[in-house]
Amino acid sequence: MPKLLVVNGPNLNLLGTREPEIYGQQTLENLNHTLQKLGKDLGYELIFFQANSEGAIIDFIQKEAPGAKGLIINPGAFTHYSYAIRDAIVSVKIDAVEVHFSNIYAREEFRHQSVIAPVCRGQLSGFGFYGYAMALSFFADTKSDE
Amino acid sequence: MPKLLVVNGPNLNLLGTREPEIYGQQTLENLNHTLQKLGKDLGYELIFFQANSEGAIIDFIQKEAPGAKGLIINPGAFTHYSYAIRDAIVSVKIDAVEVHFSNIYAREEFRHQSVIAPVCRGQLSGFGFYGYAMALSFFADTKSDE
Amino acid sequence: MPKLLVVNGPNLNLLGTREPEIYGQQTLENLNHTLQKLGKDLGYELIFFQANSEGAIIDFIQKEAPGAKGLIINPGAFTHYSYAIRDAIVSVKIDAVEVHFSNIYAREEFRHQSVIAPVCRGQLSGFGFYGYAMALSFFADTKSDE
Amino acid sequence: MPKLLVVNGPNLNLLGTREPEIYGQQTLENLNHTLQKLGKDLGYELIFFQANSEGAIIDFIQKEAPGAKGLIINPGAFTHYSYAIRDAIVSVKIDAVEVHFSNIYAREEFRHQSVIAPVCRGQLSGFGFYGYAMALSFFADTKSDE
Amino acid sequence: MPKLLVVNGPNLNLLGTREPEIYGQQTLENLNHTLQKLGKDLGYELIFFQANSEGAIIDFIQKEAPGAKGLIINPGAFTHYSYAIRDAIVSVKIDAVEVHFSNIYAREEFRHQSVIAPVCRGQLSGFGFYGYAMALSFFADTKSDE
Amino acid sequence: MPKLLVVNGPNLNLLGTREPEIYGQQTLENLNHTLQKLGKDLGYELIFFQANSEGAIIDFIQKEAPGAKGLIINPGAFTHYSYAIRDAIVSVKIDAVEVHFSNIYAREEFRHQSVIAPVCRGQLSGFGFYGYAMALSFFADTKSDE
Amino acid sequence: MPKLLVVNGPNLNLLGTREPEIYGQQTLENLNHTLQKLGKDLGYELIFFQANSEGAIIDFIQKEAPGAKGLIINPGAFTHYSYAIRDAIVSVKIDAVEVHFSNIYAREEFRHQSVIAPVCRGQLSGFGFYGYAMALSFFADTKSDE
Amino acid sequence: MPKLLVVNGPNLNLLGTREPEIYGQQTLENLNHTLQKLGKDLGYELIFFQANSEGAIIDFIQKEAPGAKGLIINPGAFTHYSYAIRDAIVSVKIDAVEVHFSNIYAREEFRHQSVIAPVCRGQLSGFGFYGYAMALSFFADTKSDE
Amino acid sequence: MPKLLVVNGPNLNLLGTREPEIYGQQTLENLNHTLQKLGKDLGYELIFFQANSEGAIIDFIQKEAPGAKGLIINPGAFTHYSYAIRDAIVSVKIDAVEVHFSNIYAREEFRHQSVIAPVCRGQLSGFGFYGYAMALSFFADTKSDE
Amino acid sequence: MPKLLVVNGPNLNLLGTREPEIYGQQTLENLNHTLQKLGKDLGYELIFFQANSEGAIIDFIQKEAPGAKGLIINPGAFTHYSYAIRDAIVSVKIDAVEVHFSNIYAREEFRHQSVIAPVCRGQLSGFGFYGYAMALSFFADTKSDE
Amino acid sequence: MPKLLVVNGPNLNLLGTREPEIYGQQTLENLNHTLQKLGKDLGYELIFFQANSEGAIIDFIQKEAPGAKGLIINPGAFTHYSYAIRDAIVSVKIDAVEVHFSNIYAREEFRHQSVIAPVCRGQLSGFGFYGYAMALSFFADTKSDE
Amino acid sequence: MPKLLVVNGPNLNLLGTREPEIYGQQTLENLNHTLQKLGKDLGYELIFFQANSEGAIIDFIQKEAPGAKGLIINPGAFTHYSYAIRDAIVSVKIDAVEVHFSNIYAREEFRHQSVIAPVCRGQLSGFGFYGYAMALSFFADTKSDE
Repeated sequence: MPKLLVVNGPNLNLLGTREPEIYGQQTLENLNHTLQKLGKDLGYELIFFQANSEGAIIDFIQKEAPGAKGLIINPGAFTHYSYAIRDAIVSVKIDAVEVHFSNIYAREEFRHQSVIAPVCRGQLSGFGFYGYAMALSFFADTKSDE
Repeated sequence: MPKLLVVNGPNLNLLGTREPEIYGQQTLENLNHTLQKLGKDLGYELIFFQANSEGAIIDFIQKEAPGAKGLIINPGAFTHYSYAIRDAIVSVKIDAVEVHFSNIYAREEFRHQSVIAPVCRGQLSGFGFYGYAMALSFFADTKSDE
Repeated sequence: MPKLLVVNGPNLNLLGTREPEIYGQQTLENLNHTLQKLGKDLGYELIFFQANSEGAIIDFIQKEAPGAKGLIINPGAFTHYSYAIRDAIVSVKIDAVEVHFSNIYAREEFRHQSVIAPVCRGQLSGFGFYGYAMALSFFADTKSDE
Repeated sequence: MPKLLVVNGPNLNLLGTREPEIYGQQTLENLNHTLQKLGKDLGYELIFFQANSEGAIIDFIQKEAPGAKGLIINPGAFTHYSYAIRDAIVSVKIDAVEVHFSNIYAREEFRHQSVIAPVCRGQLSGFGFYGYAMALSFFADTKSDE
Repeated sequence: MPKLLVVNGPNLNLLGTREPEIYGQQTLENLNHTLQKLGKDLGYELIFFQANSEGAIIDFIQKEAPGAKGLIINPGAFTHYSYAIRDAIVSVKIDAVEVHFSNIYAREEFRHQSVIAPVCRGQLSGFGFYGYAMALSFFADTKSDE
Repeated sequence: MPKLLVVNGPNLNLLGTREPEIYGQQTLENLNHTLQKLGKDLGYELIFFQANSEGAIIDFIQKEAPGAKGLIINPGAFTHYSYAIRDAIVSVKIDAVEVHFSNIYAREEFRHQSVIAPVCRGQLSGFGFYGYAMALSFFADTKSDE
Repeated sequence: MPKLLVVNGPNLNLLGTREPEIYGQQTLENLNHTLQKLGKDLGYELIFFQANSEGAIIDFIQKEAPGAKGLIINPGAFTHYSYAIRDAIVSVKIDAVEVHFSNIYAREEFRHQSVIAPVCRGQLSGFGFYGYAMALSFFADTKSDE
Repeated sequence: MPKLLVVNGPNLNLLGTREPEIYGQQTLENLNHTLQKLGKDLGYELIFFQANSEGAIIDFIQKEAPGAKGLIINPGAFTHYSYAIRDAIVSVKIDAVEVHFSNIYAREEFRHQSVIAPVCRGQLSGFGFYGYAMALSFFADTKSDE
Repeated sequence: MPKLLVVNGPNLNLLGTREPEIYGQQTLENLNHTLQKLGKDLGYELIFFQANSEGAIIDFIQKEAPGAKGLIINPGAFTHYSYAIRDAIVSVKIDAVEVHFSNIYAREEFRHQSVIAPVCRGQLSGFGFYGYAMALSFFADTKSDE
Repeated sequence: MPKLLVVNGPNLNLLGTREPEIYGQQTLENLNHTLQKLGKDLGYELIFFQANSEGAIIDFIQKEAPGAKGLIINPGAFTHYSYAIRDAIVSVKIDAVEVHFSNIYAREEFRHQSVIAPVCRGQLSGFGFYGYAMALSFFADTKSDE
Repeated sequence: MPKLLVVNGPNLNLLGTREPEIYGQQTLENLNHTLQKLGKDLGYELIFFQANSEGAIIDFIQKEAPGAKGLIINPGAFTHYSYAIRDAIVSVKIDAVEVHFSNIYAREEFRHQSVIAPVCRGQLSGFGFYGYAMALSFFADTKSDE
Repeated sequence: MPKLLVVNGPNLNLLGTREPEIYGQQTLENLNHTLQKLGKDLGYELIFFQANSEGAIIDFIQKEAPGAKGLIINPGAFTHYSYAIRDAIVSVKIDAVEVHFSNIYAREEFRHQSVIAPVCRGQLSGFGFYGYAMALSFFADTKSDE
């Protein structure tokens, strides 16, 4: 079964308790569970990772990318300044989709710029929980037969 | 059957012939056909509109929004300067998703800014043809029971 | 009876339903009716025009300006980028007053710049419905005997 | 009789002699006289104040605002940098209208920004002497029955 | 006989009456007539189009480009913000020359930037009426035998 | 008994009535009274001054600084543009602490820059009434034995 | 006994040896010891943490915030770019005070901007060692009875 | 005897004690005395004024300009933001020379911009005490016979 | 026979060998030869000059301008920063046309700004070799009978 | 034998596989091996460190700097935003040389700024593998006898 | 007799014919003659130099500075970009005064910045011919006895 | 023996006397002598050139580049604005290394940008005299066998 990486950046481990009016009331565990099931239905194994540390995320991408079909990543606040994660994605040549819970273009000015999006296949933001499923479907429906 | 509006902005009528290395080889007609079928499966009627004129797009949104559940819009180049389309979306209070074929964050500098995204529910870019289907699924799966 | 042009730009046809907390609850029809009456009292015939299309507004200005004493214009969102409407006003050499319902300097950053005001006689913003009457009085009281 | 404050900022005491091609040939005394008469007709008492000192203007606003229905203010050059006058207007919670003789958007770049307008009800510029009358009418016609 | 498109943007229909100190005293009809004759001498058929509407210009380019050897375009004020016309030129892959009556680099700051020039073969500005003839000669003398 | 100057800038005389949700409900008189008592306990005499005029504040600093151990200053809106007060502090070589009631970094953009802080010993903002006491303690606890 | 978190960011473990002309000659251990004693006097238990890693600081805040009354944080160089620490503070809804040894507004340009201050209760900078005590007093004196 | 105005802005009354390494060790009184003598030799009466208040400087200029041949002004920190003094100079149509003790272009960034210089005859900076004499000679040698 | 100056700036002496994909394969000598012939046909004597030195170009313009009808200048890289050449053109009051081989608006950002164009009659770029001929025709056809 | 530290930042552990057209085909192990040999020849012991984590790099610098003669550092993407590493270098007062494989000034805009270079002895970029040897020689040849 | 250098930059050799409404009607020869006489009266020998070439000016400064007491320089357009002349002045450690005929702060935006002034003793602009005499007096009156 | 060009820009002929605290105490002659010897050892003939004139440097590069293996260039102040030298390097397709004595990133803001580095193989700055030797070694060790 082909593998997909699902990476969540800083503070996303607090999903469900963190600003629920923005991020909803489900936990990261719920999210991963739902995605795992959906992934199985679509014929994919999902490998989940969350960290508050930029270095740990780079380590994970470097280690797991070689055997994976793609990367779904919500870099959290790293979206706006982590050129190191950007370089990691380019270095391992993985097909990546950047996901954001909230619509980052409707929030503070600093959230409008992603330094990571330019090296991804695509970006989606504002679809909450469902956004991850959208990214997963994208890989399943368009990539399996390339 | 609930209705969804699907609006494509300037030059998207040339899909299939316009820069196929960026926009793919299918025509807008193909796209609409595929979406209509998918919509029907999900229980939605889709109303398509394409125009090269900003005013025509605003007229369409004003006229059709009242009876519609949502709006999927690829504003084309208007993305970057049409504050008038932005105002139209706010004025009719419609739930909108902004879609782009290509990853606008990986192209020319001027394409990195959307003046419309801040008033949309979400934005997705870089998923080509499939992006419209993702937006459609979003409406079908998350909005039907609100 | 001397003529004055009253031009409203995109989405102003939705007055009364569009964001009533900002734009009030009266319709454009109400506005025009009130102004027409006031105009008659002051000895002016008013010619009304509203369009969502930049080109249509330019066409109107070009056609009607020659026989008119002045132009009251609320360019809506075009205020912020339509150099073409600006050029139209200069081209026909009409005395113009720019009007805005809301105080554009108390709203989003992008609304703080008008590309049209520099070629107008004056600008007024934030007086709602009454602002059009103020502009009309200006023409009636100061221009009739020039 | 309800009271309205009319404040003129630095160098406006030179009206009539200062750059008459921009500011006209009438003096501030003429202006005040005309406004006083108009105010009386509309049922308002006007209290005039002019100063070249930012501090004096703030003192005046703080002292007179409590008993007044509104403030008509032409801050002169203070328009462009006096955050202290801005704060004064907010502090006393008075309904203010910013007025400028000339069209500030048609003059030097630095005159295009008002730091005071964002806390006013509205702004009008370019109508010369008559602009004060417009502001006065606004208060009389729209505010008396709030 | 090979065809060339000649497109004039907003307010250029007012040539001859619009700011004659900048744009000269001949009308657009005169211009087209002169060009048509010169075109015939050089073995080209010219198709003229003028519109105040961005959408109409895009429609025209899309429709006529397939059968044409090149495009001479004076986008008027659209020069400075119409990314949609820019995209149209790229979409139809036509060889375009941007022309301006006046020297746009000697006028207001906002006229110094063309968003369309980067996708044209070349740009020329400041040669008045004669500039169109220069562009026409360019096509005739350098392109016929490519 | 060593002396400390406590200077409050424009509109701070309105404390207690001015935007109480930001500035609290106590008056400047209350503040001074509380500080005077605290000062006495710590062995300091406090000299209070408030003015809405930049010039008056500079006059005060020039006159009182020579005999004083330090300056606690809340420049109000002058924080953001009074290079003249900045120069005054440098000119008299006094040890100054800049204080703000509210957290200026959580308010409007223009409040984020202090032109005075660079010439002060330190700055504190966001601690309301208590911030003045903090500044006072700083002088009492760290400066008395230098 | 209520708890307060005291977090020091990168390179602050070198206090006493690092640029003593800026940061003084006492070590972090001295600082913590002094604060612990002061805290005990004021009825607070202090929990200290220092790390050179952004991720470790976020981990600490997430873990300890739930049981704590407040956070005293000197983010060191992270002050200027760690949107991830900013998000952590918001996510756990803790009352935070940002502290800096030196007056950051009197140093290099890049140190003038804090991306963390906007989500804190307040900020103080330039009071050296004593600044932590000021922050501690703030919590003890103003927060205990809320 | 023709009159010349000599105006010194904020903190220049501290000459001799203020940052002597920049401003020298002579007092303003010395300066005025020296200039008065030099003026007399050149056939001019000098009228001196110094104030820390922007408003007072404007008042002085307005009052004294009508009878004066010229103005020598060192606006101190007002140089960088007092558009009101700039307007005063234009309003009274006086021939002005801006003088600075120190070379403002060799100091902090904010001192590099003068908002007043554009409306002066000329500007000189960096010549210390002697700069005033240079300005005085300029008036005496070039203006007396115009 | 009237004279025209043809000036080429730095590195244009390398035409034919320098980046032929941008500048073509003909040498400067070829260019001059072709232009000389064309000039003769049109009744003009051409005086050619090329230098890598800004000063030499200014010397040439100063010396030859008095007897010449116009100047065709390709300033090469000096286009983007030589205010001295700009001043030279203004100083000698010559009618100048700025020419560029390549379309400077389709190349690096720094090439988009010409400091010389604002003082020229017009600018043309992107027409390669033929651009010089266009400029020559402009002088011959429009200037001879002024 | 004196020691030199050699630190490589994020993603440099992928040398040899990462974008070989930019970074060459040798691995980090090869690089270290070559350098170690060269170091030995020059009388230096080299201590190597690579990490994807900013905090780990700071920890290493803090721990090893005291016994070392110098630091050769390629901060990778941290070059562009890690003020924390910058502070670490200053804090331990080590003589540092910044090295980059590729010419960072010939790549994306964001790579043109180094926040670390200002606190280094020097910077070199674009010499690939050999750049480290150059830095090593610099220490060996110029520093040994200081 | 002590020597002073007087350097004039590009296009200043055209004085008298170049834009006389800005630069007056006297020639550079007149200027030098007048200055030479004034210099002799003050006990100085003046050495004049004018060039249109930046390199020639640097050569002159390098050669003549060692034996000179000071430098009066009007760098013409080089004022705004010649960092090389700036470096020359610093390199030879000469006391320099920058002079401009016209008030550069009242002309085009680009003339407002001098890259040379920061390394001069002072700058004066707007005094025409007489400005050179002012600079000369400055050297004679303040420098002779240092 | 293969040849290498060594070019030094403006004011570098003053090495040894110019700001020795920055540039050291050896002369350019010393530098060239040392390099010549080192070059001979490495099997290279070095051709030296220094000029204060941009044009002379371009002339030299154009003349000597064809027979040379590479270029070591310290453009001095031209680093920051000479697009003409940049174009020269590209035009002759020579492999260039940019060298700076001092660390340009630790000096004035304007020295942080090199317009020449983007077209060089690499850049090194801050290594003083030794930097040239590093560049020379780079050519000798890495280029000889390409």
